[in-house]
Amino acid sequence: MYEGIVQDLIDELGRLPGVGPKSAQRIAFHLLSADPVDVRRLAQVLVEVKERVRFCSVCGNVAEEETCRICRDPRRDPSVLCVVEESKDVVAIERTREFRGRYHVLGGAISPIEGIGPDELRIRELMTRLADGAVTEVILATDPNLEGEATATYLTRLLKPMGLRVTRLASGLPVGGDLEYADEVTLGRAFEGRRAVDD
Amino acid sequence: MYEGIVQDLIDELGRLPGVGPKSAQRIAFHLLSADPVDVRRLAQVLVEVKERVRFCSVCGNVAEEETCRICRDPRRDPSVLCVVEESKDVVAIERTREFRGRYHVLGGAISPIEGIGPDELRIRELMTRLADGAVTEVILATDPNLEGEATATYLTRLLKPMGLRVTRLASGLPVGGDLEYADEVTLGRAFEGRRAVDD
Repeated sequence: MYEGIVQDLIDELGRLPGVGPKSAQRIAFHLLSADPVDVRRLAQVLVEVKERVRFCSVCGNVAEEETCRICRDPRRDPSVLCVVEESKDVVAIERTREFRGRYHVLGGAISPIEGIGPDELRIRELMTRLADGAVTEVILATDPNLEGEATATYLTRLLKPMGLRVTRLASGLPVGGDLEYADEVTLGRAFEGRRAVDD
Repeated sequence: MYEGIVQDLIDELGRLPGVGPKSAQRIAFHLLSADPVDVRRLAQVLVEVKERVRFCSVCGNVAEEETCRICRDPRRDPSVLCVVEESKDVVAIERTREFRGRYHVLGGAISPIEGIGPDELRIRELMTRLADGAVTEVILATDPNLEGEATATYLTRLLKPMGLRVTRLASGLPVGGDLEYADEVTLGRAFEGRRAVDD
């Protein structure tokens, strides 16, 4: 509908996840009237990100060097390994400042519907990392949904016989939430996982 | 939270309209794992769009040349001029294939709250275009909201004394909608604008 390049831009933007045709048009017109310097900077970052970013050869997290910042940090505890689905999860956990160990990014979760089996995930790399016995605890921090639980169960069966301590993040009521709005499964888990209150 | 360039990309994407921090992160990770060729093409289109796209010197629509495709088309009726707020509106009207005249893009609507007065819009250019008397009807196709109506009222006062036929798009029930869900103002307008049914 638009003249050449404007339509090309709308088409390209519409390919991004979560950007529908209307949003694509809105973003395109924003860019048309934006400062050329800003648009050029965005274009530049896009090119650079593809040139510079790769995945850490140890943990699979995003990295600008052969290994990521966390794997290179000697202050991180090498005996605890936190297994997550995506790099986004590493960032979410880092934000809590609760965890001082290292990570392993699987690159997804087991999902028969999407055709993702254990071989599509970085599980072989995980087993290789655990081979030297330096890690004593593996925290399974996959998502608390069907795929994440299936992945955690699969990994538990694989890791338990190796004599490792295998843990899973607690399920329960989200802090700041309302008990009455919690779904039954979450509330059920909160009961299951209840703890004695300290005096 | 992310390493250098990844965070830069998330920040840049987050500046786009309608893209929040979560969407920016999602798009960034999509681009990280996307084919480098696709990402380079997006970057290229961004650069090109700023180099090639300008605004038609006659009507203010987006154009890749001095004037836009519609202004250059000799088959378009030069006696009817449709005044719209944005280039997006031109595309919406073109899609109907109902209109064969020409356009004038104001570049917005009068909005005292946003500090947009008549001088910020392409109204002076409109008056210049109407000076030679070739246009006999001006269709005011501004949005059917407060700002659009204010702009239409302002333009009507300006154009009527010039002896032009000034019309406004019909307000009424949207086709395919449910009468019971129509707001009172729309339903009121639909009554006001009711027409005799042909036999």
